[in-house]
Amino acid sequence: MELEKDVSIAIVGGTGNLGQGLAVRLAAPGIKVIIGSRDPEKARTVVESIRKASGKEGIEGKGNQEAVREAELVVIAVPYEGHSKMVTELRDQIGKKIVIDAVVPLKKGKPFIPPAGSALLEAQEILGTETPVVGALHNISAGDLQEPDAPLGDVLVCGDSKDAKERVMGFIQKLGARAFDAGPAANAYIIEGLTGVLIHLNRRYKSKHASVKVTGIGD
Amino acid sequence: MELEKDVSIAIVGGTGNLGQGLAVRLAAPGIKVIIGSRDPEKARTVVESIRKASGKEGIEGKGNQEAVREAELVVIAVPYEGHSKMVTELRDQIGKKIVIDAVVPLKKGKPFIPPAGSALLEAQEILGTETPVVGALHNISAGDLQEPDAPLGDVLVCGDSKDAKERVMGFIQKLGARAFDAGPAANAYIIEGLTGVLIHLNRRYKSKHASVKVTGIGD
Repeated sequence: MELEKDVSIAIVGGTGNLGQGLAVRLAAPGIKVIIGSRDPEKARTVVESIRKASGKEGIEGKGNQEAVREAELVVIAVPYEGHSKMVTELRDQIGKKIVIDAVVPLKKGKPFIPPAGSALLEAQEILGTETPVVGALHNISAGDLQEPDAPLGDVLVCGDSKDAKERVMGFIQKLGARAFDAGPAANAYIIEGLTGVLIHLNRRYKSKHASVKVTGIGD
Repeated sequence: MELEKDVSIAIVGGTGNLGQGLAVRLAAPGIKVIIGSRDPEKARTVVESIRKASGKEGIEGKGNQEAVREAELVVIAVPYEGHSKMVTELRDQIGKKIVIDAVVPLKKGKPFIPPAGSALLEAQEILGTETPVVGALHNISAGDLQEPDAPLGDVLVCGDSKDAKERVMGFIQKLGARAFDAGPAANAYIIEGLTGVLIHLNRRYKSKHASVKVTGIGD
């Protein structure tokens, strides 16, 4: 599915590595990327440096609330420690917009399962069932995203809204990655946890680029 | 690490698809594979048909207890429903042998987390800390194993004994698959759960071969 041309995407926690990488890949003509930060000034500074480094226009920096208010799709890319508080604070601005939750519950770099069952289910609990929450983008390397020509791993997309998943998969193809429908929201703990395995692989095999590819489907 | 030439491997629940696939791939000269079943007669019948189909010698069929007693490495490949009971029944025969737990907790084809935290941790709890339990082989397609020339997905290997993991990784390379040290036993719920995601992908995209490859490491 092709993403509508004039879509706007807010990246909450967008000044982090994942957020910056997403911004670089998405800032194509017609996609408006709004990097959100607790500190609007910091968001603007980061955007300035992304523009200089990548030559990409179409990126703005704002406070998180303003970023979410102005966007159609919302990516949550904060560290897990701030996840619950951030989603709660943004509930009104999010409304019924599609939320892409890319957050991985980690404690000292190791994966764990939060009380709600996963970060995705935690967000869904806070936002209510009428807000479509989709899990995605956990497993791709932030460093690879920031290199416009680096090959990306596949993106496993989960959630209980089929329509929202379809729209998010279209959005991910814009990043230059393959997206797969990886099942219901109940599968999120696996996809989030997989990032913990990739962190281990990077440490164990001295890499920064560990990622996964699905095989046996369409190849 | 190269596997010792004259090793013997018992496959508990070896008459199932995964067990038969492993037997076909492992029955190379010098590796003795013992397919175990609750019913020794069934094990022998399955071995006979594998021998006819593959021309491979070096496979035997026995009751589970006898199979484990005679082998150096033990693969557990039973459906999750029978996992706890089977491991308990075989505790004495297992002793301090390396156990490769390939079991995936599934309910109606969907992954879940058992009370112990994972199938691996359940086995470790039953067998005690002196038995090295390693999680592996969850994510490769049983059908692909049975085709001797089919390419296999990567195998994520986890467990708390570094030595046992090394030995199991050597064993997996004999199957024609790449093996990666995917971290401690605590990561098993992720690797087991990943099979649930692959089951979803197979259904969603009408395949029987969904598997994963690690990228960004050594390539």
